[in-house]
Amino acid sequence: MPGNTFGQLFRVTTAGESHGPGYVAIVDGCPPGMALSVDDLTPDLQRRRPGQSSVTTQRKEDDAPEILSGVFEGKTTGTPIAILVRNQDQRSRDYSDIKDKYRPGHADYTFDAKYGFRDYRGGGRSSARETAVRVAAGAVAKKLLRLRHNIQILGYVKQIGDVIADVPSPEKVTLEHVESNIVRCPDPRKAQAMIDLIEQVRKQQDSIGGIAELVAVNVPAGWGEPVFDKLKADLGKALFSLPAVMGVEYGVGFACATLRGTQNNDIFTRGEHVSAGGPPSITTATNRHGGMLGGMSSGMPIVLRCAIKPTSSLSQPQPTVTTAGESTTITTKGRHDPCLLPRFVPMGEAMLALVLADHMLRQAAIS
Amino acid sequence: MPGNTFGQLFRVTTAGESHGPGYVAIVDGCPPGMALSVDDLTPDLQRRRPGQSSVTTQRKEDDAPEILSGVFEGKTTGTPIAILVRNQDQRSRDYSDIKDKYRPGHADYTFDAKYGFRDYRGGGRSSARETAVRVAAGAVAKKLLRLRHNIQILGYVKQIGDVIADVPSPEKVTLEHVESNIVRCPDPRKAQAMIDLIEQVRKQQDSIGGIAELVAVNVPAGWGEPVFDKLKADLGKALFSLPAVMGVEYGVGFACATLRGTQNNDIFTRGEHVSAGGPPSITTATNRHGGMLGGMSSGMPIVLRCAIKPTSSLSQPQPTVTTAGESTTITTKGRHDPCLLPRFVPMGEAMLALVLADHMLRQAAIS
Amino acid sequence: MPGNTFGQLFRVTTAGESHGPGYVAIVDGCPPGMALSVDDLTPDLQRRRPGQSSVTTQRKEDDAPEILSGVFEGKTTGTPIAILVRNQDQRSRDYSDIKDKYRPGHADYTFDAKYGFRDYRGGGRSSARETAVRVAAGAVAKKLLRLRHNIQILGYVKQIGDVIADVPSPEKVTLEHVESNIVRCPDPRKAQAMIDLIEQVRKQQDSIGGIAELVAVNVPAGWGEPVFDKLKADLGKALFSLPAVMGVEYGVGFACATLRGTQNNDIFTRGEHVSAGGPPSITTATNRHGGMLGGMSSGMPIVLRCAIKPTSSLSQPQPTVTTAGESTTITTKGRHDPCLLPRFVPMGEAMLALVLADHMLRQAAIS
Amino acid sequence: MPGNTFGQLFRVTTAGESHGPGYVAIVDGCPPGMALSVDDLTPDLQRRRPGQSSVTTQRKEDDAPEILSGVFEGKTTGTPIAILVRNQDQRSRDYSDIKDKYRPGHADYTFDAKYGFRDYRGGGRSSARETAVRVAAGAVAKKLLRLRHNIQILGYVKQIGDVIADVPSPEKVTLEHVESNIVRCPDPRKAQAMIDLIEQVRKQQDSIGGIAELVAVNVPAGWGEPVFDKLKADLGKALFSLPAVMGVEYGVGFACATLRGTQNNDIFTRGEHVSAGGPPSITTATNRHGGMLGGMSSGMPIVLRCAIKPTSSLSQPQPTVTTAGESTTITTKGRHDPCLLPRFVPMGEAMLALVLADHMLRQAAIS
Repeated sequence: MPGNTFGQLFRVTTAGESHGPGYVAIVDGCPPGMALSVDDLTPDLQRRRPGQSSVTTQRKEDDAPEILSGVFEGKTTGTPIAILVRNQDQRSRDYSDIKDKYRPGHADYTFDAKYGFRDYRGGGRSSARETAVRVAAGAVAKKLLRLRHNIQILGYVKQIGDVIADVPSPEKVTLEHVESNIVRCPDPRKAQAMIDLIEQVRKQQDSIGGIAELVAVNVPAGWGEPVFDKLKADLGKALFSLPAVMGVEYGVGFACATLRGTQNNDIFTRGEHVSAGGPPSITTATNRHGGMLGGMSSGMPIVLRCAIKPTSSLSQPQPTVTTAGESTTITTKGRHDPCLLPRFVPMGEAMLALVLADHMLRQAAIS
Repeated sequence: MPGNTFGQLFRVTTAGESHGPGYVAIVDGCPPGMALSVDDLTPDLQRRRPGQSSVTTQRKEDDAPEILSGVFEGKTTGTPIAILVRNQDQRSRDYSDIKDKYRPGHADYTFDAKYGFRDYRGGGRSSARETAVRVAAGAVAKKLLRLRHNIQILGYVKQIGDVIADVPSPEKVTLEHVESNIVRCPDPRKAQAMIDLIEQVRKQQDSIGGIAELVAVNVPAGWGEPVFDKLKADLGKALFSLPAVMGVEYGVGFACATLRGTQNNDIFTRGEHVSAGGPPSITTATNRHGGMLGGMSSGMPIVLRCAIKPTSSLSQPQPTVTTAGESTTITTKGRHDPCLLPRFVPMGEAMLALVLADHMLRQAAIS
Repeated sequence: MPGNTFGQLFRVTTAGESHGPGYVAIVDGCPPGMALSVDDLTPDLQRRRPGQSSVTTQRKEDDAPEILSGVFEGKTTGTPIAILVRNQDQRSRDYSDIKDKYRPGHADYTFDAKYGFRDYRGGGRSSARETAVRVAAGAVAKKLLRLRHNIQILGYVKQIGDVIADVPSPEKVTLEHVESNIVRCPDPRKAQAMIDLIEQVRKQQDSIGGIAELVAVNVPAGWGEPVFDKLKADLGKALFSLPAVMGVEYGVGFACATLRGTQNNDIFTRGEHVSAGGPPSITTATNRHGGMLGGMSSGMPIVLRCAIKPTSSLSQPQPTVTTAGESTTITTKGRHDPCLLPRFVPMGEAMLALVLADHMLRQAAIS
Repeated sequence: MPGNTFGQLFRVTTAGESHGPGYVAIVDGCPPGMALSVDDLTPDLQRRRPGQSSVTTQRKEDDAPEILSGVFEGKTTGTPIAILVRNQDQRSRDYSDIKDKYRPGHADYTFDAKYGFRDYRGGGRSSARETAVRVAAGAVAKKLLRLRHNIQILGYVKQIGDVIADVPSPEKVTLEHVESNIVRCPDPRKAQAMIDLIEQVRKQQDSIGGIAELVAVNVPAGWGEPVFDKLKADLGKALFSLPAVMGVEYGVGFACATLRGTQNNDIFTRGEHVSAGGPPSITTATNRHGGMLGGMSSGMPIVLRCAIKPTSSLSQPQPTVTTAGESTTITTKGRHDPCLLPRFVPMGEAMLALVLADHMLRQAAIS
């Protein structure tokens, strides 16, 4: 099965390359009757778009989506929603300086190894620009989750370099907190330190990695499947499918390695409300389990973190080889993100939303 | 789609519960003509089996597999291979002390929330015993990968509690190193410290977490798909689908957060051999990228790590609630692993093998 | 994707060969809480079983199913239901007379062409014996459909050779009508003529084809998807996946070729009841559309027909070639069905039930 | 799983409605390196297009495709190929006369039953206009099959009303024969009678059904899977997924009902060539099996037939009900095909090509 489709019942298929005419996402499985227009897609696309602030790439792309199908008189019809985002600024230039060189950290070499050749004008299908239509699709999923279950999905920057934000209650962070600064960190003091660090590495023609945290609240208990399609497994796949993600953890994550069972187990307590038709409401006093037990949602906030590597493209020369295996150097022209984190936030939210919308429908099928 | 099937072209479907008659895996998509017998499955099943050493649970299960189909005159036929592992020791006992209580850290509550009721005699479908048939299926995948591409897959224990093994060259670790001690740590000095730590927590009626490292060598460059089905994404899903996994990372992993691009990029160099029909052989001087670039294998060793939480079952009493929401305490009888890591190793290897076998066939389809 | 799995949400995976240890079906996606035991599977297995009457093969197989998983205290748990049917009578015999010959009309040659070799002791994976576990899985689907929507599924023999049954109202046929004679034809007069014809061809060491009709009543309007996964398309696949099916039609079927639009259109009229939450109840005065319009169920009885070829195995000698391409003759020993129709009926019902159960869950997911 | 995706390894996802902005198909899984441009898509789109002759609808649609992705420097890259066909002529008109009425034979009622509402301006997602992008996708598959295996795929009209073409050797029909007349019948004498019949029913404000025959030659033996994904099963689904198809048969089809085994079995004989790596070349003296045995291709021509109902839209008034269930009449304005057969031919070819391309890649994966 080719790898350009994600999800089972809420399902997204994307096509498009960075230097082609544009990108398409087909969102299949959205239930009928939900109000939807391009205005629902635009806010997250604006948060993902290049050129949005001084800490991102200065490239300009409008990323204006067109809905081609699946909506009639302002409402989803239950049929597939095709979303088209045209590429702009497709001026041809001379690619002879990069055509035969492998950019370090990029997919150039592995793409050649897989397919035998590649679009040498940029990342082609491997460009992070593909996430634009994922973010558009994710906006559809977010709205569905909000309307059906009041589920709120939010991401933010937790760490850049050595600067670590203090976010004691992930479930209490709001979009306003996140969007209050250009680096999307809800800890205002650390946000400024992050911005300063990014400005510094940019001046050094370098880049810097970081960690994003993603939170979903109000997810009902019981979503996810007990074995292969655990909620954590589908979320792991979703987040690792984003460019530059080197690690994913939830709840205590890697810190569990040094914990004892007595320190790690969250103790069940009686909760305040009763879920319809299910067992009596149960909650946990702590959330080291990050909202998932046995691969199924527990009703507690779902909390995940992704490690994002520093941007591979650097405007300083880097040694590499040509496609013929000869030593050379490469300088990646163009305007790159000195740090991927601020623009990663809406991408991570989109993937979290797509997984939850899918499991919402999967649970509906057996209920 | 129900969640009991894994993989696209090399595909495993499992069924079974801990207290039922047994487990079945159907391995579909294995190419015809490969020699296969139960002797190929037994070694890894023995490494996963309970009761194998003093640092694991002392429960006894033979885990003897029967191949029901798909093999004729000692060779795979290309048709599905069904593997049956009967449960032993199904003596009925009195479950009244646990029937109505939610074990902390287990899927009891989320199972009830999902399905409305559950097999209260144990983990049911959520029991880690399900991994027995995954390990059997993984043994088929391992053999296929070894015969076709000389791919070697190996896991080992990297960390337990604060004891961290020193493994400077993951790709040089051998099965003999790993199996030289009961904790499956290739660093002999740290192995003893790990064993001591496990013995200590067991005496305290507690448990301890850790980190496993998984390595695949000789994977050709170009496996994996550029977008959703990135190799790292499918591996992320595979490993998160195992019980108790709280985090997955590859290459530098979470450490990338504090790295600069100049520190993180692996520089391409000319390699020594040429892959058939592909571009000239290219390699990297370092392997911070963990063998995957743009979601596709680079030809360098694939290196991943999983964080495993401490066993949730404890033989000391823990507070919890009943299914009716009333406070109570629970003591999990039976013999539990004080640390999941030694038995996790073959499970992680199996999932790594299943993903690679799947992408091997996917790559063959387009070549 | 290997081809041993059927369905999306109600999903069956089968394994097994005619001369191996046995067959397994894993039924995944059955909702929790439905009473289920082997007694639910036995009746249809008895209707499919060899040796049941003088017009079928005289081979003996008990076809006693064992449920290995997915049922607890007599109810489905929502987890996969594995059903095992052991083969009996696996006495080894001398296969040297057929080992290197291609049986006309069978999959021997195409199997070799696909996989390079085959189990020469019989049909192997291509044996119609595989339908035993499909029938068991179909019995689960039938029960689910009956309990949820009072859907009744029934098949019967419509034609054998030139003998055509008169069944003016397919939706009024009952199981008692069908089972009142060994040929499973609800027209008693024609049933005897069919039996006589089968006895005659058997004496001639020949075989005869026929047509089966399948009916589902009480299917709610709106099941099926408008484009690729039309209900008629999934049913077409389901029925063509059965051995010996050469044609499938629904409603007027091939007779539509000579009809005018004014003759073929069924006129909508107001119905008697109102479906919950949907549009006002609408029905049609006639049912030339066979219960499906635009690929979705209309609420009228679903009526399909399958053409079944005469059994390919004959006890008289037939010319053929060896695997080396040399001319020879083959006489298929063993006891074969002189006509496949009587035993086809439960197979066709099972596939119809599997498709409807799948679309029932698919519809539930978006409702 | 939503039903807008077809195929496993060569996979098409479509979106779009008749009265929306346009249609998109994403073709995923086409191997890299095949020359492709819109010129490869245009010929079949022209054969499917409305307004092409006096025996089709006189509506005008250009159906000019744009390739949005997946092609670089004139060659497929291995990444998804998105094809966009904009709708023309979207002038708004007054729909009050049809908005609340159910057209006989159409999906209006079943669409409402499924989704609760529908785009009342036409067929919406159920419009046969959706097949435009299928035909475009099928053209990609056809080219791949031709280049890799010299497979030729061709359809033609076999019967309209009582006029039956005489086509003694389906495998010898050429595109020139088919396109030599506007009704796409390779028997010139019967072609004129068909045209006359269509003209007559058109004058009567009526419509007429028919039968199309589809042929694929040079398909290697061994494609298709032995159980659920039999080649005949996937072809059955593919063809039944097209609008107006009431029946599908292959080889002798429904005529098998009256045949004896001795009359129906095709006898194997030694063939003239040897397939690479496989068994010695074997062929059959006759082709009653329509090129498929045991669900796998035999190397003989694949021959199928589809029964197509008369167009449901009529320009004479027909009785029906309103969405509120009240009696009324409806006259379908606009210009409709008096007979669907001539334009069905490229649709049927496209679905046949999509199935074969999929199984070609599936076979490659295990070889």
